[in-house]
Amino acid sequence: MCQIRDMSNQSLPIVDAGADGSGAACCAPLACKPLSESEAAELAPLFKAIADPVRLRLLSLIACHEGGEACVCDLTAAFDLTPPTISHHLKVLKQAGLIDSERRGTWVYYWIKPEVLARMSALIGPASRAFAGTA
Amino acid sequence: MCQIRDMSNQSLPIVDAGADGSGAACCAPLACKPLSESEAAELAPLFKAIADPVRLRLLSLIACHEGGEACVCDLTAAFDLTPPTISHHLKVLKQAGLIDSERRGTWVYYWIKPEVLARMSALIGPASRAFAGTA
Repeated sequence: MCQIRDMSNQSLPIVDAGADGSGAACCAPLACKPLSESEAAELAPLFKAIADPVRLRLLSLIACHEGGEACVCDLTAAFDLTPPTISHHLKVLKQAGLIDSERRGTWVYYWIKPEVLARMSALIGPASRAFAGTA
Repeated sequence: MCQIRDMSNQSLPIVDAGADGSGAACCAPLACKPLSESEAAELAPLFKAIADPVRLRLLSLIACHEGGEACVCDLTAAFDLTPPTISHHLKVLKQAGLIDSERRGTWVYYWIKPEVLARMSALIGPASRAFAGTA
């Protein structure tokens, strides 16, 4: 596992793979293998797409919306921004592959693509959960 | 929990908080509360700092390095880039608060700040682990 030197005084959760299958699937840290050039080149645009406060909020609004999808009308109402500006940010998230959408009647509905977020989480999750076991 | 509509055919792991304390600490999805404006403003620069292939690779090289810290000499050797370019990227990561460093003799050593990565992971991790339970 990643061996992170913990310079903080915070107590980080100890990662325990556990004995049962679900625990292992959830908690086992991914093997710590440095990213290849091609992996890094694929992942960087995903992080760039969410490196914006409005897009971060849009992403979290969609993820937390009842039913897992949000109408563009609900999203626009949450910001002091014009509909075209919101549409632009949604387009950036969609082009990066983080969300998908479908028109139903008057409105467009958006939802998260969890498999893409899982790739991003797999990079920073294990490092964040590691602890100072070897320093 | 976040209710994500899963449009893919992939089988996503079912998040199970488990009965024991460590399982809950590891696996329980964070409450799905949309990010506030101030939270988004704080988090966006962190994602911006890693929205670059070289910095992503540096971060993963440091996290995966034996002992949880890496000498700048090891990091520079992994790239076809000049030492000043590597130093620039390390400076961006350090200014964002993702890594810290210490000079020891000739070399500077770098390590990850897991508490900062944990904040980023808390945003994208739950959404990535959610599944289509209600769509």
